[in-house]
Amino acid sequence: MQRYFVEPEAIQGQTVTITGDDVKHIVRVLRMEAGERVIVCDGIGHAFCVELTDLGQDRVLGQIVEQLTDQVETAVKITLAQGLPKGDKMDMIVQKGTEVGISRFIPLEMARCIVQYDQKKEQKRRERWQKIAKEAAEQAHRTLVPSVAVGMTFERLMNSLDGFDLVIVPYEGEKARGLREVLSERPDVEQICMVIGPEGGITEKEIATALAMGAIPVTLGSRILRTETAGLVAAACICYQFGEMGG
Amino acid sequence: MQRYFVEPEAIQGQTVTITGDDVKHIVRVLRMEAGERVIVCDGIGHAFCVELTDLGQDRVLGQIVEQLTDQVETAVKITLAQGLPKGDKMDMIVQKGTEVGISRFIPLEMARCIVQYDQKKEQKRRERWQKIAKEAAEQAHRTLVPSVAVGMTFERLMNSLDGFDLVIVPYEGEKARGLREVLSERPDVEQICMVIGPEGGITEKEIATALAMGAIPVTLGSRILRTETAGLVAAACICYQFGEMGG
Repeated sequence: MQRYFVEPEAIQGQTVTITGDDVKHIVRVLRMEAGERVIVCDGIGHAFCVELTDLGQDRVLGQIVEQLTDQVETAVKITLAQGLPKGDKMDMIVQKGTEVGISRFIPLEMARCIVQYDQKKEQKRRERWQKIAKEAAEQAHRTLVPSVAVGMTFERLMNSLDGFDLVIVPYEGEKARGLREVLSERPDVEQICMVIGPEGGITEKEIATALAMGAIPVTLGSRILRTETAGLVAAACICYQFGEMGG
Repeated sequence: MQRYFVEPEAIQGQTVTITGDDVKHIVRVLRMEAGERVIVCDGIGHAFCVELTDLGQDRVLGQIVEQLTDQVETAVKITLAQGLPKGDKMDMIVQKGTEVGISRFIPLEMARCIVQYDQKKEQKRRERWQKIAKEAAEQAHRTLVPSVAVGMTFERLMNSLDGFDLVIVPYEGEKARGLREVLSERPDVEQICMVIGPEGGITEKEIATALAMGAIPVTLGSRILRTETAGLVAAACICYQFGEMGG
């Protein structure tokens, strides 16, 4: 069944109002009619089977038939703080990371970022990434749309780690402590943050800061992963460890 | 240190001969001189520290200083049989799959492939994918260049599974048996084949054939992964399970 995300406010009692681009998709692309059903998610974890009742040019109305209770979202919540990569790599990171199960993306300004974070362009880029996250969430049948945070500096992130139970930093210089060892020791974690360096990697100074703030450098094995691959792979391993990748 | 792959024949006794595009890279791009060192891999699992002795326009000679014994390659060998995806997605699959640790790629013609396998274009595409695998292997510090097989039909693959200890087929229709369960039951496997369907998925008929040939359908969890993401994610989980992702 076709899936759409709406804002939580678009669901009032049993009535759902779909607006924006999705109207065109329902009415013109799929040419759906009253009586047909779609799945509507509110983006914060709830999914409903909805029967369409009124299809207009600007909005589509529907009635909730039932709430869906499949557990699609991971119990452990994963945040990817990604050192800003070159070109359009962040698009791919947001798309694939959403598929795997990441809940939140933080674009990170780090010492070796080649692309400098541009305050002027920021709003536009963030909107773009948020749209990619929404589309990927629909495609992956998620009920939560991962959020893309406003970009921040590495230092600022390091000073706002309170909400996380575990902060890991995959780092080429770490040879001993593996991801599996760290995760196995912490079966209770609920909020994990992964910090991934940009193309040039993480500086020793950044690692020292991270260590001082309680983050744990880990190795992801002896093969060197590109910046756009590391977060995705680490997220897959975290999901696997916590039984979220097909128990 | 810079890394290069050569054919095994390019290493004779202690002397290494580098030819092709890498000569330009060493001589013109990096402007290296005699006495400088690089890492040379033979692509079948051996790596050497090599001191350059003679730099020409067509070939660079060097002497082996020592063999490197770091274990970069995974003990378990992973083959990805990938239902041919649209556009240039296979490029990304080969690049990222090489980083994660896949040893062999098989482009697979399946019932729901949108792109038909083109015998005429085949040689050229395979050369392209093989080049991507070599470059990704260098970047990932692997000592083995994954091979890209000649494309084959799903039926032909199903009749040539003898060499594998375990054949898994991530399948949306499989709800019960998870990847972790299957891998946990088989700690002894050495050769794993993953069969990934194209955009449209695997047909029920293909699943029936796979089952009959001893392959095991598995779920990768409740989030639906795109075809270009599934193999990469499953490979990461296999490496994680076998302690290859930072034990």
